[in-house]
Amino acid sequence: APPMGFGYPPPAHDPLWPYFSGVAGPDGQIDAEELQRCLTASGVADYPRPGGSFNLETCRLMLSMLDRDHSGTMGFAEFRELWTAIGAWKTTFQGFDKDRSGTIEHRELADAIRSYGYTLSPQTINVIVKRYAKRSTGQVSFDDFVALSIRLRCMGQKFRARDQSGQGYATLYFDDFIGIAMSC
Amino acid sequence: APPMGFGYPPPAHDPLWPYFSGVAGPDGQIDAEELQRCLTASGVADYPRPGGSFNLETCRLMLSMLDRDHSGTMGFAEFRELWTAIGAWKTTFQGFDKDRSGTIEHRELADAIRSYGYTLSPQTINVIVKRYAKRSTGQVSFDDFVALSIRLRCMGQKFRARDQSGQGYATLYFDDFIGIAMSC
Repeated sequence: APPMGFGYPPPAHDPLWPYFSGVAGPDGQIDAEELQRCLTASGVADYPRPGGSFNLETCRLMLSMLDRDHSGTMGFAEFRELWTAIGAWKTTFQGFDKDRSGTIEHRELADAIRSYGYTLSPQTINVIVKRYAKRSTGQVSFDDFVALSIRLRCMGQKFRARDQSGQGYATLYFDDFIGIAMSC
Repeated sequence: APPMGFGYPPPAHDPLWPYFSGVAGPDGQIDAEELQRCLTASGVADYPRPGGSFNLETCRLMLSMLDRDHSGTMGFAEFRELWTAIGAWKTTFQGFDKDRSGTIEHRELADAIRSYGYTLSPQTINVIVKRYAKRSTGQVSFDDFVALSIRLRCMGQKFRARDQSGQGYATLYFDDFIGIAMSC
């Protein structure tokens, strides 16, 4: 089937289409604030309680990482891709958040990252945990978990595209390195 | 002269010492909130007006990037190093902020980054500008400029340590790549 993107007719039977078309303008694109409303309306941010929303900053991060044409906006195909990824992250998060408090412990974050299949050293996982766990409580919120997950995914995709041998390493110029790190 | 670090007696004649010792506990270390107070008291955040402060989030970023022993705190030697770097960034920023409004245009940010001597492509500079310029106005605040500068410096230092030929490229494992990107 052809990809759903520019020029393709609206996928009227897609269950996500009403949420997207409800906020997108006539150009079929949404910005960060519209993405926030879209995600809330679709129920994917309803953790731990119904009616939850992602922070606007997290939505900006999501948008900038999927915004391949640097337009500052997102079309339906990218929204669908994002929605599916968030759904999977929510399932992972819920699996660790036994008491459905909406936060997980920093040790559980390490397990969650490992469960994605990234082979990261304990030292690197520690760097990530330090960055995302609240300093006072050592807890990680669902919002922060999603922000971390999309950054890791973005970096993984860009790194893989440069790992020509498929062995887990790549030779990067400083310019390219900065470009990846600053865009993810 | 020996480096001022662990084990070295307090540098009583250092003009920065009173600001640091005024907030540091008996262990001679400061956390992010204390760093914020220290920087304000020392006047280095007084741009564009006296009495200015850096955001707490920016202070956390500064602290985590200079926190080589992962203690979550900063000693006097690191504070001094940071203070000197901020002073230089302020001079750069002021040079571009002709009307002393406290913000620079996104084009000026590109010039400022180039003035640091990083050889970055127009595409990568564009990624950075998009990340740091306010979406509505295209303006970059002094606070955001400092946050960007310390990230670039951190990434530059870590990349350089892996660039064995000194030719501007390095071969990185994915794990190491993530470690650098997530710690800067």
